[in-house]
Formats: sequence, C-alpha cells, structure tokens
Amino acid sequence: MDSTQAVLDFVNHGHERYLPHLSIDCVIFSYHEQQLKILLIRYYNQSKWSLPGGFIAKDETLTQAANRILAEKTQINNLFLRQFQVFGDSPARLNELGAREVHNATYAKVNVALDENSWLAKRTLSIGYYALVGYLDVVVTPEYLVDEYCWREVTNIPPLLFDHQEIIESALLTLRSQIYQQPIGYNLLLEKFTLPEIHALYETILGKQFDRRNFRKKLLALGLVRQLDERRNIGPHRSPFLYEFDTENYRRALEEGAVLGF
Amino acid sequence: MDSTQAVLDFVNHGHERYLPHLSIDCVIFSYHEQQLKILLIRYYNQSKWSLPGGFIAKDETLTQAANRILAEKTQINNLFLRQFQVFGDSPARLNELGAREVHNATYAKVNVALDENSWLAKRTLSIGYYALVGYLDVVVTPEYLVDEYCWREVTNIPPLLFDHQEIIESALLTLRSQIYQQPIGYNLLLEKFTLPEIHALYETILGKQFDRRNFRKKLLALGLVRQLDERRNIGPHRSPFLYEFDTENYRRALEEGAVLGF
Repeated sequence: MDSTQAVLDFVNHGHERYLPHLSIDCVIFSYHEQQLKILLIRYYNQSKWSLPGGFIAKDETLTQAANRILAEKTQINNLFLRQFQVFGDSPARLNELGAREVHNATYAKVNVALDENSWLAKRTLSIGYYALVGYLDVVVTPEYLVDEYCWREVTNIPPLLFDHQEIIESALLTLRSQIYQQPIGYNLLLEKFTLPEIHALYETILGKQFDRRNFRKKLLALGLVRQLDERRNIGPHRSPFLYEFDTENYRRALEEGAVLGF
Repeated sequence: MDSTQAVLDFVNHGHERYLPHLSIDCVIFSYHEQQLKILLIRYYNQSKWSLPGGFIAKDETLTQAANRILAEKTQINNLFLRQFQVFGDSPARLNELGAREVHNATYAKVNVALDENSWLAKRTLSIGYYALVGYLDVVVTPEYLVDEYCWREVTNIPPLLFDHQEIIESALLTLRSQIYQQPIGYNLLLEKFTLPEIHALYETILGKQFDRRNFRKKLLALGLVRQLDERRNIGPHRSPFLYEFDTENYRRALEEGAVLGF
C-alpha cells in the first residue's frame, strides 16, 4: 500500500478480497558477516517492531499467498519458504480490543479508527513462515504505513508487538531442528563454500561452538555435502578445499524424514 | 452433536461460537499388534472416510480447541498432541461449491442444505494436529452424523474425502522426522520396554528395517533411552533387559533443536 487511498480501500474493502481471522507472518532470515539476521519493520506511530506479514486472498492458495507476501516485501520470487506453525494461543490474539488499539495508532495516519465490526478488528490467528534469503538480494519496498526497516541479529531483537518474539523463537527452533533435513545452508551460503564457512554458519544457527574436525566428519557421513576437487585461495599457504551441497541427498533425507541413516 | 436439534443449532448458530474459514483435523496414531494405526470416521451418506476434526471457538486458544476436539473424539484428556501443518492449497479447499455438495449429502440427514452464505459453506483452511494415543485408552464417542469408526493401518488407508490423504502423509513424514526429537516412542510404548519392542516400533514408523545392534548403539549414544537393571521374562532362557525413555534428555534435545550432539 503506497497511498492514503490504498490504505482506505484496504480497510473498507479488504474483507471482500481476503479471508478474515487469518494472517501470515514472515521470519525472513539472512546470513551476513557471520551473523544470522531477521528483517523487521516498524509501523507508523509504534515504538515496538513487527515481523512483515499480510493476508490470504480468497482465491489464492496458502502457498501462493505466502510467496506473494514475501515477494512484495523483498522483491524476491520463489525464495526458500517454509510454513512452520500457527499462532493462536497468545493473550494478545484473544484480546480484540487491545489489538484494535494498537492498529488504530497506526491507522491514525489516514484518520481511520477501526470499529469493532471491522474485519481488521477481529481475532486473528497467524500462520508463521520462515524464509532464507541472500542478504544482498533483498530490496525492501517502502510502504505507506511503515516508518522503518532493519536487519537485526537474532541475539539482539528489539521489543516486538503482539507475540512476534514468540514467533521468532519458534522459527529459530524450527531452523535448528531442520538443519540436517532442509537445505538450509544451501540457501544461506554461496554455491561453493569452504569448511570454515559452513562450520561458522552452523555454529551461528545452533548458537554454540563445536569441533570443526568432528563436524566435517559427520557432515560428510550424512552425505549432505561433498568435497570438490577445487580450492579457494585465501592467502599465502592457505587454500582450503571447496564443498557443495548434495541436493539429491537432502531431498531423499527429507522424503524419508530420517536423518541418522539407520 | 448427538441429536437433530444439536446439528441444526450448529448449522444455524455455529458462526456465533466458532471462527469461520478455519478447522482442525486430527491424525490420531496408535500402535497395536506391531502396526501403526490411524482413527478414521465415515460420515452419514459418504462413501469416503474422513479424519476426525472440529472448529475453534472464538474465546478459546488454538491449543485449547485442539485438546477439546481430541477429548471429545477419544475421551482422553491431555494426550500427546502436536500441530504440524496448515492445509490450504488443495483444489478441494478452494472449490466452495464442491465442498458444499459433499457436506450437503451428510446434512441431508437433518433435512438441511447449506446455502452459499452459510458459514459452513465458506472456504476452510485446516490446521493439522497429530496425536499419539494408547490403542486401548481410546473410547470413541458416537456422533449423530457419523456412521462408522475404524482404526486403519497407515499402509492400508481407504479412499478419503478432500485432502485428508495428504494430511495423513504429511503427519507421517512429521512423525518420522521427529522420531529422535519428540518422545514419540514414549507415548506409544509402555513405560518400560525391551529393545526388540522399541526396535519394532521404529521400524514400523520409519517403514523400513534396520539392524538391531546398530539401532541400540545409536539410541543409547543419543541418550534418549537408558537400560534398566531389570529384565522381562518372556520364555525359557529369554529375559531381555528393560529400557525406559530419558524424558529429560528428550526435553533438552527438543529445546536445542539438535539431534546429533555436535
């Protein structure tokens, strides 16, 4: 939405286009300078930050909606996107009046106050998606009701609206639990990478340090990466081998739902 | 619902109590005679079977709704229950007219035909939950619109309505991928079990055979079970050791989202 008119149209006619009671919230991860970062936005007149999100059109599938919303926010199509949880338990999601007051602070920009019958004032459950994007690929689009955007390190998230902190924590747990099943490194690293690079990424995601030699052994044993016959020159006497992901093995591991090779 | 009156009340006034556009579908697993089974129901006037399900009341949290629905279907409270995916992509979920025709076949029992404005005739996304229950603990409650119940082995599922087959397949994949993170065996086996018993359960869930000796070694290495100083007497010269789950280690593995002990 890029104008007062577009916002008013959304408030007054959105219920004709979108499903009520349901939203999508996106935890957009990228990896930059050895830090795992999340894209946050701050709406007009709010001191707390939010996750980017949107609604599901009545005539689009859930997956189409999630891809459209992510493309609108990042200008990336077909990015790596996974649904991970529906959020419908937090008191903020049951308290329609409290949520309406928060929204009204922002809609004040267009001189609108939602009444209790507005489709935007109803209890809303949110479907959480996480996305993995290249830090440099994202082009954040300005929106009329959004004052600021930022990339924040996962260990340094500012105060967030509603249950968005819980959504981030759950996304992070999901990322950790799927680190050997989903091609997570594949989407956050360059196509070819050195062992220290993937080691640093996995340490960052898992939030702890572990022995590099064991890590290499286990990663190769799982068959998720393979060593190439190529090296990267990073200095005198320093030219570590390059590796790449074995996407076929990832696919199979995912299909079988098995990670340990029993 | 146990009477014509209750069904009519649900059709005509359900929109005052429940959120529209959203349902919960439950994949209820149990393990019996070395088979992994799922509870299915067949509604009045339908040839295809369905998963048990229900709706979310406006004043209850999502978790409360899922627990209430499962308790209504099985008479078990506080069972092991996990949300795993929202289903909103299948053509059957976009085709309101087709879905309404299916529902009307069943509602014919109370001489009702849903019109297109009925809350039950709207596009519905479904939140999938899986539950793990003791086969003998379940007491299926008769319902006015349900003709039959059955437990069916996962490898032998009859034709299902809508996208329920896809929901089952996704639940099974989730179960497999979480087999070393969620206390799945804990909820399907007795408190103490022999190695052949847990080995058979894991083979059944993963749908393949694997070496028992390696399995024991890996299971103990992961710290998810521990051997007890007790044996079970199952015949002359046959008294295998008993094992139990280390629930504390399960909890920690889940929190850390890590399964491989890096």
